[in-house]
Amino acid sequence: MLRRYLPILDWGRRYTGQAFGNDALAAVIVTIMLIPQSLAYALLAGLPPQAGIYASILPIILYAIFGTSRALAVGPVAVVSLLTASAVGQVAEQGTAGYAVAALTLAGLSGGFLVLLGVFRLGMLANFLSHPVIAGFITASGILIAASQLRHILGVEAEGHTLIEMVGSLAANIGQTNPYTLAIGIAATAFLFWVRRGMKTALRGRGVPARAADIATKAGPVFAVIATTVVVWLFSLNDAGVSVVGDVPKGLPPLTLPGLSPDLIRQLLIPAILISIIGFVESISVAQTLAAKRRERINPNQELIGLGAANLGAAFTGGYPVTGGFARSAVNDDAGAETPAAGAYTALGLALAAAFLTPLVFYLPKATLAATIIVAVLGLVDLSILRRTWSYAGADFAAVAITILLTLGAGVEIGVATGVVVSLLLHLIKTSKPHVAIVGLVPGTHHFRNIDRHDVQTCPRLLTIRIDESLYFVNAQFLETLIQDRVADDSTLRHVVLMCPAVNSIDFSALESLEAVNRRLTDLGIGFHLSEVKGPVMDRLQTTHFLDALNGRVFLSQYDAWSELAGASSKSAIQ
Amino acid sequence: MLRRYLPILDWGRRYTGQAFGNDALAAVIVTIMLIPQSLAYALLAGLPPQAGIYASILPIILYAIFGTSRALAVGPVAVVSLLTASAVGQVAEQGTAGYAVAALTLAGLSGGFLVLLGVFRLGMLANFLSHPVIAGFITASGILIAASQLRHILGVEAEGHTLIEMVGSLAANIGQTNPYTLAIGIAATAFLFWVRRGMKTALRGRGVPARAADIATKAGPVFAVIATTVVVWLFSLNDAGVSVVGDVPKGLPPLTLPGLSPDLIRQLLIPAILISIIGFVESISVAQTLAAKRRERINPNQELIGLGAANLGAAFTGGYPVTGGFARSAVNDDAGAETPAAGAYTALGLALAAAFLTPLVFYLPKATLAATIIVAVLGLVDLSILRRTWSYAGADFAAVAITILLTLGAGVEIGVATGVVVSLLLHLIKTSKPHVAIVGLVPGTHHFRNIDRHDVQTCPRLLTIRIDESLYFVNAQFLETLIQDRVADDSTLRHVVLMCPAVNSIDFSALESLEAVNRRLTDLGIGFHLSEVKGPVMDRLQTTHFLDALNGRVFLSQYDAWSELAGASSKSAIQ
Repeated sequence: MLRRYLPILDWGRRYTGQAFGNDALAAVIVTIMLIPQSLAYALLAGLPPQAGIYASILPIILYAIFGTSRALAVGPVAVVSLLTASAVGQVAEQGTAGYAVAALTLAGLSGGFLVLLGVFRLGMLANFLSHPVIAGFITASGILIAASQLRHILGVEAEGHTLIEMVGSLAANIGQTNPYTLAIGIAATAFLFWVRRGMKTALRGRGVPARAADIATKAGPVFAVIATTVVVWLFSLNDAGVSVVGDVPKGLPPLTLPGLSPDLIRQLLIPAILISIIGFVESISVAQTLAAKRRERINPNQELIGLGAANLGAAFTGGYPVTGGFARSAVNDDAGAETPAAGAYTALGLALAAAFLTPLVFYLPKATLAATIIVAVLGLVDLSILRRTWSYAGADFAAVAITILLTLGAGVEIGVATGVVVSLLLHLIKTSKPHVAIVGLVPGTHHFRNIDRHDVQTCPRLLTIRIDESLYFVNAQFLETLIQDRVADDSTLRHVVLMCPAVNSIDFSALESLEAVNRRLTDLGIGFHLSEVKGPVMDRLQTTHFLDALNGRVFLSQYDAWSELAGASSKSAIQ
Repeated sequence: MLRRYLPILDWGRRYTGQAFGNDALAAVIVTIMLIPQSLAYALLAGLPPQAGIYASILPIILYAIFGTSRALAVGPVAVVSLLTASAVGQVAEQGTAGYAVAALTLAGLSGGFLVLLGVFRLGMLANFLSHPVIAGFITASGILIAASQLRHILGVEAEGHTLIEMVGSLAANIGQTNPYTLAIGIAATAFLFWVRRGMKTALRGRGVPARAADIATKAGPVFAVIATTVVVWLFSLNDAGVSVVGDVPKGLPPLTLPGLSPDLIRQLLIPAILISIIGFVESISVAQTLAAKRRERINPNQELIGLGAANLGAAFTGGYPVTGGFARSAVNDDAGAETPAAGAYTALGLALAAAFLTPLVFYLPKATLAATIIVAVLGLVDLSILRRTWSYAGADFAAVAITILLTLGAGVEIGVATGVVVSLLLHLIKTSKPHVAIVGLVPGTHHFRNIDRHDVQTCPRLLTIRIDESLYFVNAQFLETLIQDRVADDSTLRHVVLMCPAVNSIDFSALESLEAVNRRLTDLGIGFHLSEVKGPVMDRLQTTHFLDALNGRVFLSQYDAWSELAGASSKSAIQ
């Protein structure tokens, strides 16, 4: 029992010296990558830069204790940072103490909600986010995040939560562009794009070994940070209007208390739920991909507890909502992390950085951080999802398109919530008109096929309807109407058979519809029969009076039904 | 085209003298029944009594023109009157001009919404109300309505929108009970219960012919109205505190304009949508039951237009929201109505009553109207739905129970809305964990069955999973996790076959899950195959790259897959 909730007891007992070596090396690489990333995402979330570092220390340790994924690296990620900025921006002004406290509250609520989901084993709620909605949301978020960072590249003031607001605000202030900031921003962005796209090939071309080229590529953002910081410091560009990170307090994460006023909680509850679910979806898909590579299992409900603990940790140590990030987890895995302990060592590295290195980032220009964000998030933008869903199914395309448009045009929360509702509704509407076929006998066989597609025998006294969907309240009426219409049109009919090989369940509404059909057909002197009812469905029907009331029979196979009902007496009537 | 939207053009051309006779007789019977009922329901809706009569004139005529049901009788009904009182009570005080105007607006919005649904053929939206939710809602509404009328029986002031509020308010004022009112109320209630339960048998016992006994039973409420009115008039009980209907203006329905301020519309839009859908569900189920008896068809989308026109008519002639009522439609049908013209003649009868007879109801005690309502709605209360759903399925029981509790405890709108959301969620949750079976070969056959239930052959190199549900985003993750867990546990595995005879569709999310499964199994050197994929599903898959990327094959039958994959080389491995 204890081991179920504390996976560390499991892998901790088998921890070896070799695993330690591998974990420690992975931790060094990830730490170097995380420092600029953490500062940048804090900036994106509208928080002081140290919040990004703090959010990467205790949360990582707690995830190492409670999580089940070997390689998942927990901390601030781009999309959750954007959601945080959007949610907290609605209750407090950026830069105020209230803003930071609200971010803590958001992390606390999110953590509590995740733990609750995990304890009650409700991880399946995340399944309500369809792939098209997630893909559309991530793509739109990538665009929004990149747009939100343009102001740091230009060195102007701008704001807004939708693309239109952002672009309008930028356009209004573009006259105040700071040339030094712009130069740094463009140079950093270009360099980072090159790091991502061309650096590895270039290094390999000059004879650098693959492994070294790989590490150098990962350290690219660190080079950019050091180079631009040095330039600003040397030429005192901060006095020329280049916005820098400035004073960052030196020291370990402080103990903080999230705000708990009922008003604040009420305002942040829905965003917290949204952040939890989106963060969980992102995290679990990363964890599952990494686990699959090594035939490992992850436990989704325990993952909820791990992520919940991490967020609660963030709430009490000056952080903000965190989740398992794709980029950092992939680096952690590549670098050879063997156990969650690698995460704990990363936390140690970041704690050392927080304690001693923060004065070094005083001259770090915000434009460089914005460049790292832009380059990272443009990798998330994948508009091909529009084309791929378009060619596959209209409903999936509609879900993507609505999610992207509303996320860009009306904000992240409305975008994703509408996407979820639309995709659920479209699914329900699809099942409300299930595929049905009037079937007949394939001559010389015991098989029955759609009379519209195949050359089959039918009998005018007998109507056989095969329904290719479970029967439940959304489609119960459809079936009732279908049978009634067929019966109204055809006065020679004596028997109706409902063929149920694809009916996986019948709910109470559908049962009542079947009862109504049976009553109406009985009044008209028409027999009502079922065939090929599945075992579990039959078990359920046997608990009711329906089978007693049924004026016809339940046939094991459709061929039995045919033999009996279209049989001897009506052979001559077969068309 | 014109005939599709105007069914009257169809039946009107074939109208005969005999049909006229039958329709006219039915109209007389229904008119007599409708007069007290219309006054009573207006009282329930919190409106002046004439609103109930007005709401039964133009709406009936418009339905006769646009509707498709032969026998449906449109007008005020109990549940919609309750919903009207609840919705309008939130924007205006009962008895004020604003209240009546808001009721017109509600009818107008509801009419407009119904017409829109009909024109866009969206009648299927009503299917989102499951039978358990409808049954729970109708039962709870019946209890609420009966409780709300007790104040008229006692002759005290009371208010409230939930059962608790109503009972509390009654208890606080019970000291002011008026003995004359109470006597009239109890006598009328007892008489009407006897009319409903025992009168017919009693009359037949005294040799009254069946037909006459039947008509006398239907006229029961009219007797009660006349008797109590005369008693109040004779003894001037209105001066002794018995509340009476009082002055009702004489004349045809006035031309009225619904209030159209944006504020009012915003407040009433959601209730209007709710009233429309609940009214439509009630109406369509009545219409369908009546149509089935004579092998007739009704067109649900045209019904929406008919009901929408009726509500728009109510909005412009001093009425309030209307729908097709069960009791009056059954009477109309029993009385022999042959065409929608019967409705038009009823409207004529009511117009005459409005023009000439309203002074006669001055002394009609409200307690009598309350008694007619109580006796009518207690027939709606059916708590057996709790037992029946309990024994059938937990999800259906949960939907009923939540709908009843919330309707009684938190109000009609919250009750039905929560019921809909809960039943949809429970359905989605159920499909998120579909039934799956690991299957093996039944020896000596080509059939495959669940290894847990049957004694079947399996092969350790081959895992065959049969999934009994369409694959879509809510269950895609379940399948991914299932396969990953099986593969992680079993290192002898060489092939995974997904057997799809019950998979009626695969959406984009599920396609991406299958792609992920294929990639992961490919990395592990395990073959991934499908079998028994349905035609439409295969057609859809063929538009994608999935089948090219699939490392294994698609087998027409599971036996082919078995022969190929568990075949020759592994015969010895068969357990």
